[in-house]
Amino acid sequence: MNEFDFIARLRGQAQSRRHSTRLITGIGDDGCVISESSGCDLIVTTDLLTENVDFLRGVTPARSLGHKALAVSLSDIAAMGGRPFWSLLSIGMLRDQWNSNFKDEFFEGFFELADHFGVTLAGGDVSETTVGIVIDSIVLGEVTAGRAIKRSGARPGDQIYVTGNLGGAAAGLKLLELGLSVRSPTVREGSDAGAGNDASASPDQAGPRSDGDAIQALLLRQLRPQPRVGWGMVLGERQLASAMIDLSDGLSSDLNHLCRESNVGAVIDAAAIPLDEDVRHLCGRRALDPLALALHGGEDFELLFTVDRDNVSRLPRAVDGVSISRIGEVSDDSGAVRIREKNREWDLGPEGFEHFRE
Amino acid sequence: MNEFDFIARLRGQAQSRRHSTRLITGIGDDGCVISESSGCDLIVTTDLLTENVDFLRGVTPARSLGHKALAVSLSDIAAMGGRPFWSLLSIGMLRDQWNSNFKDEFFEGFFELADHFGVTLAGGDVSETTVGIVIDSIVLGEVTAGRAIKRSGARPGDQIYVTGNLGGAAAGLKLLELGLSVRSPTVREGSDAGAGNDASASPDQAGPRSDGDAIQALLLRQLRPQPRVGWGMVLGERQLASAMIDLSDGLSSDLNHLCRESNVGAVIDAAAIPLDEDVRHLCGRRALDPLALALHGGEDFELLFTVDRDNVSRLPRAVDGVSISRIGEVSDDSGAVRIREKNREWDLGPEGFEHFRE
Repeated sequence: MNEFDFIARLRGQAQSRRHSTRLITGIGDDGCVISESSGCDLIVTTDLLTENVDFLRGVTPARSLGHKALAVSLSDIAAMGGRPFWSLLSIGMLRDQWNSNFKDEFFEGFFELADHFGVTLAGGDVSETTVGIVIDSIVLGEVTAGRAIKRSGARPGDQIYVTGNLGGAAAGLKLLELGLSVRSPTVREGSDAGAGNDASASPDQAGPRSDGDAIQALLLRQLRPQPRVGWGMVLGERQLASAMIDLSDGLSSDLNHLCRESNVGAVIDAAAIPLDEDVRHLCGRRALDPLALALHGGEDFELLFTVDRDNVSRLPRAVDGVSISRIGEVSDDSGAVRIREKNREWDLGPEGFEHFRE
Repeated sequence: MNEFDFIARLRGQAQSRRHSTRLITGIGDDGCVISESSGCDLIVTTDLLTENVDFLRGVTPARSLGHKALAVSLSDIAAMGGRPFWSLLSIGMLRDQWNSNFKDEFFEGFFELADHFGVTLAGGDVSETTVGIVIDSIVLGEVTAGRAIKRSGARPGDQIYVTGNLGGAAAGLKLLELGLSVRSPTVREGSDAGAGNDASASPDQAGPRSDGDAIQALLLRQLRPQPRVGWGMVLGERQLASAMIDLSDGLSSDLNHLCRESNVGAVIDAAAIPLDEDVRHLCGRRALDPLALALHGGEDFELLFTVDRDNVSRLPRAVDGVSISRIGEVSDDSGAVRIREKNREWDLGPEGFEHFRE
């Protein structure tokens, strides 16, 4: 049984045992949605990160890990159209890590991102482990009642969009695995980190980009993903998106998740996929295929969303300096996710990250 | 730096960065409390459980682990006086465990307890690890606005109570470590599990208790703790307790936590501490000291709470068949936690479980 089959079964079990009608969305989306009586819905999400699987200890600075632990859950709240307010963080570590600067640097990175988005650390747990670092990152957010964006709302004819650009985080992981490292663990947040995809950072790209700069930017896309919190709030509160998911497993996998939940298909246009400029810059020389990384790479933490044709004109061009790209259209061919390149068209199966395959 | 010093520092950092006045209670209590605009406060708690530290894999049946993972967080909600509604569960495991019955049995135990208390599984995360089982158990509950019970509300003269009886879980752990095991992994919930401390189970104790029965009951107190959800709700909604904490680390440690938060002291009476009958039954023969286990053992998941003298007469005698015992009184001698036995009195330092000591 693979990961998604197990979760589907667990979801059925949980649904049949539902003790309250206040649970609007349970297992199977980026976060759960709980109705409050105050005109707001509560969104809760949790992400478990373990050493060697979700991050490589030796090459991940503690400060970046603190950033990323929060970022992945902020991204889930964004994918539901919510505004994040509270975080609880559970962390387990070895005694050696406890006795080092690890925990202090970890929380420096965590607080820097939390402050940026006005998120308050409200609780958590600290534990010793005998096996290395374990992190569970919980974020709570809110959205106006009824405005949370599920994966299941896409309808045939809806236009498919992604924020920012894709493939950078996967390229960064490959560079980390090749032994490359960030120049300084205290590099400014939001400067290099978003350079590859923030319009605000475009002046950096006016001149010729060096290999070194491109490598640094890609490493930071992997180590310090920038959750699209602003876009999530705009799409949710203005009711612009019919369905949404964040790109954690990879475009091919996550688009398949969204289509399955919505019981629709999709056709996307390869030429419209926004490729990371730094990946393009380095490709060839480092055997990176930008399109393959963009399709299957994962961890870009951009938002993938669908928009009713009537709402397309209401979409802002950019939020927080991040623009969007229209990459395709939802079809009524349930379960068929296809990609078109020039005159060819083929099935785009889920080839992204999965914890347990069959 | 020990665990509690680190948490105290983190709490200061989080407090100085608080982005909202809606956080009523943050780091440093059994759960965080967030004000909602609907006349309710939201309580959120999380508990990280890792192999070899929080449980022993070889001797902990998967079903019991599923029960315990939820029970420890239900106990935290109870300790805040709240009613639990929702759970999110993050679980990481090895591929071997994934491919076995582990995950199915784990969720059987989880759902059995969840159904008992009307708690709905609303979300979570599943992850592969390279290091064994990791669980983060998140529970959300609610309480009427302003009625959450903090650790910090005890006042001199308040009477100190505990639910049920103490020492059984620690004795059960020693028995597990000696290689004893429960008779059947599918033993009925709430039967043996609560026998040592539920008044409803007292008929079992009418006849002579065999060593075997006592051992089984103690193993189940360790493996399947019964969170005092009913007592928590009564004490919270009726505003009977001035301060409360659950006994996870041990009475000596947890009473010290409560007194430090309330800036008071305490004197408890050794003779009034409700000792587990099965521990008494086996003590001597198995070198178990019932009082030491009750004071320092931990994991009983009973509730420790303080009550203003004027409210004592309003306390129910039992809730869900579980009675309470008055064990002492809050003093104005800040930080001094003392225990009295006959004519002697001595300091009761925190000797319970702590993840990272100096």
